[in-house]
Amino acid sequence: MTTVRTDDKAIFERRESAARSYCRSFPVVFEKAQGATLTGSDGRDYIDFLAGCSSLNYGHSDPDMKSALVDYITGDGVTHGLDMHTSAKAAFLEAFESIILKPRGMDHRMMFMGPTGANAVEAALKLARKVTGRTNVIAFTNGFHGVTLGALAATGNGYHRGGAGLPLTGVTRMPFEGAMGEDIDTADFLNRMLAEPSSGIEPPAAVILETVQGEGGLNAASRDWVRRIAEISRAHGALFIVDDIQAGCGRTGPFFSFEEMGVEPDIITMAKSLSGFGLPFAALLVKPDYDVFGPAEHNGTFRGNNHAFVTARAALEKFWADNSFQETVTERAVYLKSRLAKIAECLPSARLKGRGMMLGIDVGSGRLASEICTRCFENGLVIETSGAHDEVVKVLAPLTIDEKTFARGLDILEEAVSEIAQSTKIAAE
Amino acid sequence: MTTVRTDDKAIFERRESAARSYCRSFPVVFEKAQGATLTGSDGRDYIDFLAGCSSLNYGHSDPDMKSALVDYITGDGVTHGLDMHTSAKAAFLEAFESIILKPRGMDHRMMFMGPTGANAVEAALKLARKVTGRTNVIAFTNGFHGVTLGALAATGNGYHRGGAGLPLTGVTRMPFEGAMGEDIDTADFLNRMLAEPSSGIEPPAAVILETVQGEGGLNAASRDWVRRIAEISRAHGALFIVDDIQAGCGRTGPFFSFEEMGVEPDIITMAKSLSGFGLPFAALLVKPDYDVFGPAEHNGTFRGNNHAFVTARAALEKFWADNSFQETVTERAVYLKSRLAKIAECLPSARLKGRGMMLGIDVGSGRLASEICTRCFENGLVIETSGAHDEVVKVLAPLTIDEKTFARGLDILEEAVSEIAQSTKIAAE
Amino acid sequence: MTTVRTDDKAIFERRESAARSYCRSFPVVFEKAQGATLTGSDGRDYIDFLAGCSSLNYGHSDPDMKSALVDYITGDGVTHGLDMHTSAKAAFLEAFESIILKPRGMDHRMMFMGPTGANAVEAALKLARKVTGRTNVIAFTNGFHGVTLGALAATGNGYHRGGAGLPLTGVTRMPFEGAMGEDIDTADFLNRMLAEPSSGIEPPAAVILETVQGEGGLNAASRDWVRRIAEISRAHGALFIVDDIQAGCGRTGPFFSFEEMGVEPDIITMAKSLSGFGLPFAALLVKPDYDVFGPAEHNGTFRGNNHAFVTARAALEKFWADNSFQETVTERAVYLKSRLAKIAECLPSARLKGRGMMLGIDVGSGRLASEICTRCFENGLVIETSGAHDEVVKVLAPLTIDEKTFARGLDILEEAVSEIAQSTKIAAE
Amino acid sequence: MTTVRTDDKAIFERRESAARSYCRSFPVVFEKAQGATLTGSDGRDYIDFLAGCSSLNYGHSDPDMKSALVDYITGDGVTHGLDMHTSAKAAFLEAFESIILKPRGMDHRMMFMGPTGANAVEAALKLARKVTGRTNVIAFTNGFHGVTLGALAATGNGYHRGGAGLPLTGVTRMPFEGAMGEDIDTADFLNRMLAEPSSGIEPPAAVILETVQGEGGLNAASRDWVRRIAEISRAHGALFIVDDIQAGCGRTGPFFSFEEMGVEPDIITMAKSLSGFGLPFAALLVKPDYDVFGPAEHNGTFRGNNHAFVTARAALEKFWADNSFQETVTERAVYLKSRLAKIAECLPSARLKGRGMMLGIDVGSGRLASEICTRCFENGLVIETSGAHDEVVKVLAPLTIDEKTFARGLDILEEAVSEIAQSTKIAAE
Repeated sequence: MTTVRTDDKAIFERRESAARSYCRSFPVVFEKAQGATLTGSDGRDYIDFLAGCSSLNYGHSDPDMKSALVDYITGDGVTHGLDMHTSAKAAFLEAFESIILKPRGMDHRMMFMGPTGANAVEAALKLARKVTGRTNVIAFTNGFHGVTLGALAATGNGYHRGGAGLPLTGVTRMPFEGAMGEDIDTADFLNRMLAEPSSGIEPPAAVILETVQGEGGLNAASRDWVRRIAEISRAHGALFIVDDIQAGCGRTGPFFSFEEMGVEPDIITMAKSLSGFGLPFAALLVKPDYDVFGPAEHNGTFRGNNHAFVTARAALEKFWADNSFQETVTERAVYLKSRLAKIAECLPSARLKGRGMMLGIDVGSGRLASEICTRCFENGLVIETSGAHDEVVKVLAPLTIDEKTFARGLDILEEAVSEIAQSTKIAAE
Repeated sequence: MTTVRTDDKAIFERRESAARSYCRSFPVVFEKAQGATLTGSDGRDYIDFLAGCSSLNYGHSDPDMKSALVDYITGDGVTHGLDMHTSAKAAFLEAFESIILKPRGMDHRMMFMGPTGANAVEAALKLARKVTGRTNVIAFTNGFHGVTLGALAATGNGYHRGGAGLPLTGVTRMPFEGAMGEDIDTADFLNRMLAEPSSGIEPPAAVILETVQGEGGLNAASRDWVRRIAEISRAHGALFIVDDIQAGCGRTGPFFSFEEMGVEPDIITMAKSLSGFGLPFAALLVKPDYDVFGPAEHNGTFRGNNHAFVTARAALEKFWADNSFQETVTERAVYLKSRLAKIAECLPSARLKGRGMMLGIDVGSGRLASEICTRCFENGLVIETSGAHDEVVKVLAPLTIDEKTFARGLDILEEAVSEIAQSTKIAAE
Repeated sequence: MTTVRTDDKAIFERRESAARSYCRSFPVVFEKAQGATLTGSDGRDYIDFLAGCSSLNYGHSDPDMKSALVDYITGDGVTHGLDMHTSAKAAFLEAFESIILKPRGMDHRMMFMGPTGANAVEAALKLARKVTGRTNVIAFTNGFHGVTLGALAATGNGYHRGGAGLPLTGVTRMPFEGAMGEDIDTADFLNRMLAEPSSGIEPPAAVILETVQGEGGLNAASRDWVRRIAEISRAHGALFIVDDIQAGCGRTGPFFSFEEMGVEPDIITMAKSLSGFGLPFAALLVKPDYDVFGPAEHNGTFRGNNHAFVTARAALEKFWADNSFQETVTERAVYLKSRLAKIAECLPSARLKGRGMMLGIDVGSGRLASEICTRCFENGLVIETSGAHDEVVKVLAPLTIDEKTFARGLDILEEAVSEIAQSTKIAAE
Repeated sequence: MTTVRTDDKAIFERRESAARSYCRSFPVVFEKAQGATLTGSDGRDYIDFLAGCSSLNYGHSDPDMKSALVDYITGDGVTHGLDMHTSAKAAFLEAFESIILKPRGMDHRMMFMGPTGANAVEAALKLARKVTGRTNVIAFTNGFHGVTLGALAATGNGYHRGGAGLPLTGVTRMPFEGAMGEDIDTADFLNRMLAEPSSGIEPPAAVILETVQGEGGLNAASRDWVRRIAEISRAHGALFIVDDIQAGCGRTGPFFSFEEMGVEPDIITMAKSLSGFGLPFAALLVKPDYDVFGPAEHNGTFRGNNHAFVTARAALEKFWADNSFQETVTERAVYLKSRLAKIAECLPSARLKGRGMMLGIDVGSGRLASEICTRCFENGLVIETSGAHDEVVKVLAPLTIDEKTFARGLDILEEAVSEIAQSTKIAAE
């Protein structure tokens, strides 16, 4: 093998596309990762409050998943099998059925498209259009569903939309809960627009939403609002799709973010933490009546990542076979909320946003949020912003984070906010 | 862990989407895979002439990549790092630069979007549109570029297009070399359509092509035709994109399928065998002038699969550091061609198609091709069809296949063709 | 000449398309028309409260226009001159400039596309997109702007949209004033959607509205709302377009429907009563800065109907050279309003809608409105419905209607409503 | 009435949109027009070889139509009747049925949309899409079908398409007969593209063509090619639409341009000379099975121009009741062809294009063609260019032109070509 200087950042400048982004906020070459800790090539440790944007709900390099995966690889388990049957896939499906679907009374089927969330969204929208014979899809302000052309049409963010290079079609935008201020009942608004024959809104094939808008600023929809949207979807002949890519897999407490809302989505998109180990993996859960693609009608090379089947199964068996993990997450969320509430007090107009372990502080401006995150990183904490103006400091710690590390990370955040609040105050005086 | 019967096919019926496809042709649960051999859960071995549709050019479970990957995992290497710098990515980039780019005088940058070929195509088309400010893209008959909405518009296959649920826009279709018969010079046709101000064809942002159409029936473009298309693209202000997802990584001999054609594409899409090990992995190679996305303008969760960086680097160092591998592939391709030529003689109107180790026999009908593949599978060979009518029996063996296994696989194919030709002949008499 | 039986309705059944519509409500063959009176081929007179959907604001066959037109034709004036200069066009332009534009301080230029309102809208939207380089256009619920593909995208009516045969693109729908109930300030709603960078609403090229939605149910926007929409358009870099096709030419009192609102639209679409005589004629008024089409970039065969130039000029000189006509219209509107208010009292939930001489009664259901119109027709009054549910009985009498005929028409309407209210009441008891 | 100086061109500069075009080539204010002669406001006469782009096939101010129209107007005939039955419409329909449809065995129905050709095309495409449930339409290189958004998608001209402001969708472009050179059989090309399931061409709702491309350079399709296109349309389930707006109404000899080709289009668009008198008027002829619009599903204010019904009927009765007119046109076309052939000899590479009285000379460059037309105009002849490069000098004289005026016009053309050829030759020496 050639010898490479793996801490050389020049190679990224020289050869990686300008589209790279997170590395700009965290200009370190990371070498190792364990649990809630990332280690740079210089040996320095960082607490990870980003967790792969919720792709690492069970932390980095979980020992049980790691061991299952290494066993699988060393045993020459099938790595790439297109969408052929493999024992790894069978085992995953059986685990998902017995641990997740059956206990929740869900008869959904799983579709493995490609291993990205965007691909799950693309497949979901195509499916809804095929099922209904309609083309329009309702998506919400601040929703984020990916950047491939079909998914991007459903994404609200203007910066990402601007990269399309084509007018984005097939999606009608509606205000998310609270997006138009307290006074406007946006579920009612949607209902009126759909009910009115001259509103100019085509009957929709689907309504797609995130219960908590992870990229859009941690806007958390209420149980009541989600239920009403589900009812309105049904009433107007549209499929109800929950994009649970960021909020699912326990991030808000239960496995699905909508579990305690009394709705049963027709289609659910899953990705990010689904593999458990951070591997590329995505799936669609589809009610049997809507499982209408013909063989390979939506296809792709990486339809089923066997390594991910192995780690995902291990994750299901380790964390979801009983209620203990969910209870722990709920406890941690209570702690997180109280800490953030206190931190938010340092800043005059700051307010808490989000739900469960998907919580953040809207600090009022992107500049301020960015300063806070930069200060945190200097002090050993990886944390990022969210929202249309990047105005929300977002905590997405691994759900498995130990109490001490969690507290230490929040201490760093608290210090950063406090110091910046102080200096801002001084500057203002 | 729960005990699961991993050979239970009922779980797939019960819980996997009807969109599954290859498992219908090969109704076995695969358990292990090594080199060119797949092993079923019943212990039976199958020679693999499908190779993950060219995703396993180096065979299954290559021991060097396997060992590098296991070391990385056991050493708690970063698995998921969004698009942050990791030492695994640095090492891959340095290897790709020194082994692939520099020796070929290429100054392209690499973009990691999501780990699928479709995503690479989506990003390529968005980029070309952003660079040029134009919306139209020229794609060719029988081209296959993926099934997400932006890529699907460029894909020719009517079955896949039918799943879109929306009219597909932004792409103008032109005939591939030979697609309209011997008499029509399709490069000249394209040039006239673009040159004529009232042709109704918008000035294109890009022209995208595969040098060998892997899914479209192994149509292999000539060096001359590809060069002319590249020149026409340039002359009309369009970016020239080669989709090298299936034909790249040595499948036709050299690393890139266009290497000996005297063209330098503005953008190259890579996926399938890029990771070397069958892991989900894709990249875009972009000339620096066209690397115009802003940070995260095209983003995604799995931008950079660190496991794939590890195996891909190992693959580069093992197979591409010198010419020996390419020479071996070329030799095997000669052998393959001679064997297929002989096999094709069994069938009256059969003809060879493709290039390098991407070769097949057009047997004239999808029914016949399907019968041949079914017979092969009964005899222990995994092989598939290609083409608009599935009329081409396609050999996509691992490039690393040993001579004996290769010969045995071709024997099975020969027997199948011969028997079916015989019975067809008898039936006709 | 052959002899034809001009009262033969069978020819329409036999040879006219099923798309015909008004003739279904008024199954009579009309032979002559004078002022506010239509005469059937059987000699029966009908008072015309439809007035060609506001295309006959000056009544049928105005003697001055008639005489100017007959003089022009008999003098071999140019009938068809493409868009060449003709003395008829010069005279019209000079009259329009001196009588309409100059007194109002308007520097707009006139574009003659084709002689239909839809064409004016098509040209307006193309122009706005060209000026701004943007594709999105904001239109409102219940707006009606025509049924050719570009205009239809801006039209709200689901029945008309359903005829498109293609997904309609390039338009975002926003609620008109009051459309979402009293509580929702729809101007504020629009502003928030445009101001929010992740709302998913593309920056618009234009905002297009009718100040009174003629087809959409006589929804009359307030001065304040229109002004705010104009300001919001400007603030977001969008052209402000008033579609004054139905409400213009004095229908609401002043020549333009927005005249007393303190706004100056960037583009104004005119058609219907613009010719004065009911001839096909349309125009665009465009601020000089936005007059950016190249020669013939938007063209057509009938760009300037010379007969219409002659009658339109006569209409301007007769009705708009001083204020007297506008004052008369205003007086008639007061009378109309008081009569309709009284009529509305017959029906429990009826309410008045509209503005000026564009007034109607929302009777709560399309069935009821249709019964009323049918009864009116039996009694010699041509009157039609409007609205998403055809629930508004709409009075569009010629503005020149004499008091006696006007009163007689309203008497017929009153009787019809009263009788039907009575019978409905009896049926309910 | 105010006094206006009708020869004042400043008003056009001041108030007419920059989109005006023909007036730039013929910078005169026209005052009167009779037969084949236009008269400027300065009293100068011009022979009209433009004839409103074939809208004045019967010349200006035909005395019989004029008298019928004046009688109608003075008798208070209904001018504007929306799409209500009028005796003028009945008489027209009966005349059209008995004179045109019945003798040709055509059972088509007539639809009056709006009075423009573009609107006829819009309605035709919407109808075809509704009938078939498909969205794609096949149109040809150099085709011109109007500039409203739906029609513009079918128009080939890049300058007009550039004004769209939106990507134009729903149309696939195919080469017209001869467009790709003599060697390529473009009917066969179309057939292969439609027959090939992976060609990427969606099954079309319709194929639309002009038998002679009036704007596109007088490309005249052969009988055989048109028949084959019609057969291919049928074979692939597409409606066959002939856009006869410019070539119809006798321009090529018979009433319809396709009459002697052995095809029966499913839909025919008519406009331009349909009114006979140059009035805005258009119609769709639709086979009864495809007359599927609901009432007003495609609507508009000017659905049926009663003045045009009157003149159109007079034209039918005067010119089409027997064969004499068609025979005269045929004779004139022979004369025209021989004169143009001789004129073309003056220029080295010039060649004749077109068919019937729709004939021109391709002089090889737009600059040269423009010089010729300018010279002609100086000498009292109104004549224009056509073609993608404006390279064809196009003769569109009234079909009714008397022999002497026709000869005089052609003399002017001959002199102009001869002089310019001479000076070009001198310049070259």
